[in-house]
Amino acid sequence: MTLSMYSASVPVFKQILNSLLAILDKADAHVTEKKIDPQALLQFRLYPDMLPFTRQIQIACDFAKGCSARLGGVDVPAFEDNERSFAELKARITKTLAFIDTVPQDQIAGSEQRAITTGSGEKTKHFTGQTYLLHYALPHFFFHATTAYDILRHNGLEIGKKDFIGSY
Amino acid sequence: MTLSMYSASVPVFKQILNSLLAILDKADAHVTEKKIDPQALLQFRLYPDMLPFTRQIQIACDFAKGCSARLGGVDVPAFEDNERSFAELKARITKTLAFIDTVPQDQIAGSEQRAITTGSGEKTKHFTGQTYLLHYALPHFFFHATTAYDILRHNGLEIGKKDFIGSY
Repeated sequence: MTLSMYSASVPVFKQILNSLLAILDKADAHVTEKKIDPQALLQFRLYPDMLPFTRQIQIACDFAKGCSARLGGVDVPAFEDNERSFAELKARITKTLAFIDTVPQDQIAGSEQRAITTGSGEKTKHFTGQTYLLHYALPHFFFHATTAYDILRHNGLEIGKKDFIGSY
Repeated sequence: MTLSMYSASVPVFKQILNSLLAILDKADAHVTEKKIDPQALLQFRLYPDMLPFTRQIQIACDFAKGCSARLGGVDVPAFEDNERSFAELKARITKTLAFIDTVPQDQIAGSEQRAITTGSGEKTKHFTGQTYLLHYALPHFFFHATTAYDILRHNGLEIGKKDFIGSY
């Protein structure tokens, strides 16, 4: 089996999104046990002009769904950014996982040279599918997923790199 | 051009390692300008039982060189973990970039089913090349590179996600 645009995208997103689901469970249990206001973690930023935890999770989901949809040539579904709890963030991830599984694998396969456009106006970017996946979507996805993990670790949640890498 | 094990590995590592080089320059200039002891950043951990900045950079380099070497079927060069300054960390990255460029591209291409073994004793892991690259080496690489970035951001270095994503 040779490497495909499908194998380098959807299964990778699924691995890390499933890790984040398990990490969110641990964060939720932690704040309950320690009687911490969940917003202390959900709104935590590693620096005042960085995005809070909730946005990191939302954006990681957006790169997973946006990349899978664009490579597969289907519309990118819009998700409202209205999550206010660990449970709601878990639901967003679950919704993302469900969506990326609906993108036909055979439409993602062969998308190496597909013309991909993101953004609009001055922020419009043009890519081939391969450059978009490897050099843009995956780095952004991992950036936000790791930063979400780092925020929780920085706040004392007892998780380790194994929780981030998860199962594959 | 179809996706290859080469295009999904070495050029991705190069993109992010080059970003880290530029970020290290900014960190070095920052501590000089602000008269900060460089060790305050080099030894900084986001939590006491997390690894310090220096180790994050070293390990990111190790995943880049280890993955490129194993996929290419060449020996993994051993690097001493003795960097004590931003300049030395830059040299480590430069050495890593130089090494991964020596691994023959045509030996990495076609490594999807190559048997890859990492670790030893109880920690031995067996992979196919494809699983190793997509589900192990790339996630670990991005994890450490992002955490290095997060440490500097948390300490007030004026960098943004564009610095992390870099050029591709």
